[in-house]
Amino acid sequence: MKKHISLWTILLVVSTSLSMAQNTEYKPSSANQAGKEYPMVNEKGQVKAKIFAPDANYVQLDIGAVKYDLEKDEEGYWVGESAPQDEGFHYYQLNIDGASVPDPGSKYFYGAGRWGSGVEVPAHDQEIYALKDVPHGTVSEHVFYSEISESFKRTFVYTPPGYETNTDQSYPVLYLQHGGGENETGWSNQGKANLIMDNLIAAGESEPFIIVMSDGNWAFRPPANNDDDAEEDDAPREWPPRGWADGFMNTLIQEIIPMIDSNYRTIADQDHRAMAGLSMGGMQTRVITLQNSDVFSHVGMFSGGSISPKDVENNPDFKENIDLLFVSYGSKELDGNGRFGDPRANTNKLGEMGMNTHFYVSPETAHEWQSWRRSLYEFAPLLFRN
Amino acid sequence: MKKHISLWTILLVVSTSLSMAQNTEYKPSSANQAGKEYPMVNEKGQVKAKIFAPDANYVQLDIGAVKYDLEKDEEGYWVGESAPQDEGFHYYQLNIDGASVPDPGSKYFYGAGRWGSGVEVPAHDQEIYALKDVPHGTVSEHVFYSEISESFKRTFVYTPPGYETNTDQSYPVLYLQHGGGENETGWSNQGKANLIMDNLIAAGESEPFIIVMSDGNWAFRPPANNDDDAEEDDAPREWPPRGWADGFMNTLIQEIIPMIDSNYRTIADQDHRAMAGLSMGGMQTRVITLQNSDVFSHVGMFSGGSISPKDVENNPDFKENIDLLFVSYGSKELDGNGRFGDPRANTNKLGEMGMNTHFYVSPETAHEWQSWRRSLYEFAPLLFRN
Repeated sequence: MKKHISLWTILLVVSTSLSMAQNTEYKPSSANQAGKEYPMVNEKGQVKAKIFAPDANYVQLDIGAVKYDLEKDEEGYWVGESAPQDEGFHYYQLNIDGASVPDPGSKYFYGAGRWGSGVEVPAHDQEIYALKDVPHGTVSEHVFYSEISESFKRTFVYTPPGYETNTDQSYPVLYLQHGGGENETGWSNQGKANLIMDNLIAAGESEPFIIVMSDGNWAFRPPANNDDDAEEDDAPREWPPRGWADGFMNTLIQEIIPMIDSNYRTIADQDHRAMAGLSMGGMQTRVITLQNSDVFSHVGMFSGGSISPKDVENNPDFKENIDLLFVSYGSKELDGNGRFGDPRANTNKLGEMGMNTHFYVSPETAHEWQSWRRSLYEFAPLLFRN
Repeated sequence: MKKHISLWTILLVVSTSLSMAQNTEYKPSSANQAGKEYPMVNEKGQVKAKIFAPDANYVQLDIGAVKYDLEKDEEGYWVGESAPQDEGFHYYQLNIDGASVPDPGSKYFYGAGRWGSGVEVPAHDQEIYALKDVPHGTVSEHVFYSEISESFKRTFVYTPPGYETNTDQSYPVLYLQHGGGENETGWSNQGKANLIMDNLIAAGESEPFIIVMSDGNWAFRPPANNDDDAEEDDAPREWPPRGWADGFMNTLIQEIIPMIDSNYRTIADQDHRAMAGLSMGGMQTRVITLQNSDVFSHVGMFSGGSISPKDVENNPDFKENIDLLFVSYGSKELDGNGRFGDPRANTNKLGEMGMNTHFYVSPETAHEWQSWRRSLYEFAPLLFRN
């Protein structure tokens, strides 16, 4: 019997060791450029960077607001790893002798007001945004001149699989906004909104609908002065942008929605139009849908505040008109003191007042894209079911 | 009288000085990230870089195969400029103490086998690809699973202005390929193919047609071995990729063209189908159209060789079937000894043999994107006129 227990002990030790070995085995990040080995990630969520910089004095991996020193090997490569990061996508950069630069190993993503490096920590639920052999929708880029902002703007449009061939079918539309420091590329590049929808639709878990992802950075420019030859196009964006909610509201309602309804086979009514956004985009969604509940029927706010009973008192049509209010946060950002009050308490109170509300918490994630990917995955199946 | 001449001399000197001052005045490159001042360019084509790297030993601007040393100022910024570059788009990078990295000031473009920095030297003919307030087409991203290569592939599709609303109209299609070390993003990002077409169509100088831009990097992967658990997706791309012409030919003819014809309102016949490409893409066009002149009617090769009388002897259907053969080069890459013989002489001989041929030379440009933007601008108006 004692021998038997020993065998189990040995098996347990071996199995634990194997498991630990597996956890610390580094693999290339899925956000790397084709053929690039670094950065690598392991199952604990550590990120390992490597760069050739033979004459540098120091090199650091700058991720999650912490700078990790890399060590130089005899060939001139600097190598080092971070503490474990949460599951999902993270922005990062390298610091070479004081210069903050993108890592030449990664693909680049627009966030924090710049195009920079990103890394993917494998998530236990990464299947929800995996590229699979299912029918795929299309992401289209539209450039248009905005009379309201007197500048060119860009919008990306996701059309679901079959849109091109099912020419008798019209579709509902979700207007989906990025966060502060991000732009109209975020939801497809980092958010993988197209893949999330392809997978949900293939599984029969969501109605097919169109998603419109616009530039919500809204720096209103004063009317051009005819006496002034200065070029305006290179003006740096202000932060926070002037008119971030109401300026964007005007172009969304007066320019983007009419453009989409005239160029796509939409069901162009309030019942079949939703708006959602993350962080700043959630706050824009709040301001815009409170004032335009005759335009939208379904509302999503991801890590971007909530709607309070007071808001609804001030905008009684909202309660009447909105078929779904979805509010979500990453578990690590929920401290009960969110902007505009406690978002969970606010949302629950609106539910008690008779609204159809959902409050979702993304497990073990912070104010990052994994929270928002999951939020879209939870939100989409609830849309346009009426 | 002498006084009068002096006045003219003074005016001439002042005017020349002003003109020279203007030529050396630096402005932000139009390929910069929003709000970023550097890199800058002047009218002589010099590129000026600037980066904060207080603890670096040296920093260089690496452009046009030359590394220019930057100088450090007292605040820790490194600043310096290149020799004049040709008009148009150029890839470049920074070298910080031996590390080759993207410049955080520029947007990023896929070339030389990586996502890296790009800079725009203003061109005298930049109006051909300027973003103007004209009707704009749409660039759409398609992901599909290629059975032939057993991997996911991506294709971008340009549809001309009005495609979404003119639902009774069908369109011809141009299959347009990138060069070696580039990918399916090149023609719209660096090439500005969409803007070139929008402008040509708005001016009534080109028929509206669809453009399909696919990944021509074709590394054939052997059939998966069931006993082998190794993941294949992270395999680095070979250079030159195996099957770069015939491997891509199979997927183009058997997979991409049928996919486009079933998802878009194309005129799905040989008369209304063209193929063109730059550099490696031109060589692919040569191989593919020589073997498939029943599939394509219009052929363009930009800085990518030419078709010789011998080729036509070996493929007699080509002469019979092809309505237009367009061959182009940058003036700086024409030394009379191109691959497959002298491209101008080859093309002229085919013209003498009765084919409809055009030979175009882009003035004062080399093997770079300005040659290819101009080539598309010259090629497009000749298409689908029969």
